[in-house]
Amino acid sequence: MGEDGTVHAELRRNTPDTSDATTMNDLLRGMVEELRGGDAGDGVCAIGVGAAGTVEWPIGRIRWAPNNNYENWDLRGDLERMTGLPTVVDNDGNVAGLAEARLGERRFDDMLLLTVGTGVGAGIVLGGRIYRGAHGLGAEVGHMNVNPDGPQCGCGNFGCLESVASGTALTRMGRTAAAHDPDGMLAHLAAEDGGEVNGRHVTTAAMAGDPTAQSLFERLGRALGTGIAGLNAIFEFEVVLIGGGLVDAGELLLGPTRRAAREFHYGPPHVRPIPEVLPATYKGDAGKIGAGLLALEETIAPERAGLPSNE
Amino acid sequence: MGEDGTVHAELRRNTPDTSDATTMNDLLRGMVEELRGGDAGDGVCAIGVGAAGTVEWPIGRIRWAPNNNYENWDLRGDLERMTGLPTVVDNDGNVAGLAEARLGERRFDDMLLLTVGTGVGAGIVLGGRIYRGAHGLGAEVGHMNVNPDGPQCGCGNFGCLESVASGTALTRMGRTAAAHDPDGMLAHLAAEDGGEVNGRHVTTAAMAGDPTAQSLFERLGRALGTGIAGLNAIFEFEVVLIGGGLVDAGELLLGPTRRAAREFHYGPPHVRPIPEVLPATYKGDAGKIGAGLLALEETIAPERAGLPSNE
Repeated sequence: MGEDGTVHAELRRNTPDTSDATTMNDLLRGMVEELRGGDAGDGVCAIGVGAAGTVEWPIGRIRWAPNNNYENWDLRGDLERMTGLPTVVDNDGNVAGLAEARLGERRFDDMLLLTVGTGVGAGIVLGGRIYRGAHGLGAEVGHMNVNPDGPQCGCGNFGCLESVASGTALTRMGRTAAAHDPDGMLAHLAAEDGGEVNGRHVTTAAMAGDPTAQSLFERLGRALGTGIAGLNAIFEFEVVLIGGGLVDAGELLLGPTRRAAREFHYGPPHVRPIPEVLPATYKGDAGKIGAGLLALEETIAPERAGLPSNE
Repeated sequence: MGEDGTVHAELRRNTPDTSDATTMNDLLRGMVEELRGGDAGDGVCAIGVGAAGTVEWPIGRIRWAPNNNYENWDLRGDLERMTGLPTVVDNDGNVAGLAEARLGERRFDDMLLLTVGTGVGAGIVLGGRIYRGAHGLGAEVGHMNVNPDGPQCGCGNFGCLESVASGTALTRMGRTAAAHDPDGMLAHLAAEDGGEVNGRHVTTAAMAGDPTAQSLFERLGRALGTGIAGLNAIFEFEVVLIGGGLVDAGELLLGPTRRAAREFHYGPPHVRPIPEVLPATYKGDAGKIGAGLLALEETIAPERAGLPSNE
C-alpha cells in the first residue's frame, strides 16, 4: 500500500482449519516472501496487521481470538524476526477506523466506525488517534451490553450489541421468521439455496420489498442506533460510519439506525449536535488500508499522522 | 482547599428557586467575598467549580442544566471578571472522578466513578486525565441507553442507565412495591413519615432485612453492574468506584453490582481482568475537593498532576 492508501499488490489466503500460531506463521512468512518477490516488492518497507481478536498494544501480542486456535501469540515479534521488517499489529476494527478517519471521504478526528458483518467490529478515533482502552484490549463496542435479557452472543454473554445488531442476529431472526411463515419469501429463498435462511437471504428479501425481512432490518437498525446514541452520550462523535457487509442494504439498515440514534440522543441538539450516521468509504478494504497506514505512521513517517495541534 | 485535598473553609448555600444566571452570579460573588474575608481567606488563589449540567470545556460555559433556569451561562468568565481569580468550571461528575483518582485511597490512572444519587453522575479518568468527550459535553454515562423499553428518564429519553440505577429509580420501584403490598415495611415507613415512599425508605427497609426492599437493590445493582461491564469492554478500567447517597447501602448495592459486572464481563479474566467495584473514598465531598484540585492543576501547579510518562 502507498502513502495515499492505494493498494499496489494484493494476496489473499484463507485461514487454515488448524489456525495455531506455528501454522499461521508459516503461512504469513510465505505471503510476505511472495509479495516482496513480486512487481511491487522493492517498495515493501514495513508490515501492518489488522487482526481479529484481542491484541495487546503496542506489543502486538494476540491475547485472545475466540474463533481461532491461537492464544497469546507474539505476532509482531514473530513477523519482525521472520522478515526483518518493522511491524505493527492491531485489532482489525481499530485499523479500519483509522483508514476511515484519515483517508475516507472526509477527515474526522472524533469518529466511530461500526463494522456490521458476522459480528460488530468497532474502531474508535478520539482526537485523531485510535482509542484502544488502557492496554489495547478495549474499544470492544460490539460487546457492550444493550439488554441483559437479550440473546446469547458468540462471546458467551447475553445481550451484547453484536448479539442483536449483526449478520448473526439477522440470520437468527430470519430463521425464526421463516419457521413462522413457511410460505414467505425468506423460507422460499432458503429452499431455493437448499439450506437454512442466512443473512444474505434476509437482505435480498428486504431489498425486494418483503415486509417481514424489512421489519428485521428495522429491529436490527433500532438496536444499532440505540447503542450509537449511548456511545454519543460518552464520546460526542462528529460522525458514526457504518461499514461491513450489512451496509449493502443501504437505507434499509441506515434509516432505522439514524432514527433510533436521534430518538435516544442525549440533550438538546443545539447544545449536543446529533452526529450523522453515514456509510463508510472503504467497504471490505478498510482493515487492509488501515493496517498499512498504521505501519506507515508508527514506523516510518509519524509526522504523517498530522494530529490536531491540541493533542 | 489545600494541595492535599484538606478543606480549610466551607460555606453552603442552597440554589435559589429562581436559578437564572444573574441570581446565581450574585450568590456566588457573595460566597467568594465571604470566604476571602474569613480565616483562610489570605490563601485563596483560584476558583474551581464542579457544576451540575453540561459544561463546555475548557471555556467553562454551562450549556445546559435540565434542573436549573440557566442556559448558556459563561460561568467561568463571570467568576473571573467578578473576582479577578483564575477559575475553572467543569461538570461535577468529572471533578469528583479526578478527586477519587488522585487523592483517594489509591491513585488510579484509568478509572470510572459512578455517583449514584438522585441521578447517576460519572467521572471518567483515562491515562490520568479527566475524559470529557470531544468538547467537554460527553462522559454522560448516566444517559447511556441500557434498555430501549425501559422507564422514562429525567432527560426525557427512555431506558437511560440513570432511569434504572439511581435514587429516582429506587423511589419509583419502592412506590410500586408499596402499592402492591400496603401492609409491607415500605408502605409503613412512608406512612410514618406521612408521605409517599422515597429512596431513603427503601434503603432503611433493605438494611432492616425487608426482602422486598432488598430485591429492589438487587434489581438496581444488576442494572448498574451490567452498564459497568459494557463500559469495561470499551475502557478496560482498573477500578470502578461507586459514590453518591446510595452507596450507604453498602453490600446491598455493591454485591449485585459486582455480580452483574462479572456476569457480563467481556473476555476471559486472565486476558482482560475484571475491575474491582469499590466504594468511593470521598462521599459527598468528592465534587468540592475535585473542583479545588482541578483549579490547582490547571491554573497554579500543572506539574502537580504528575501524569504518567507515556501521556
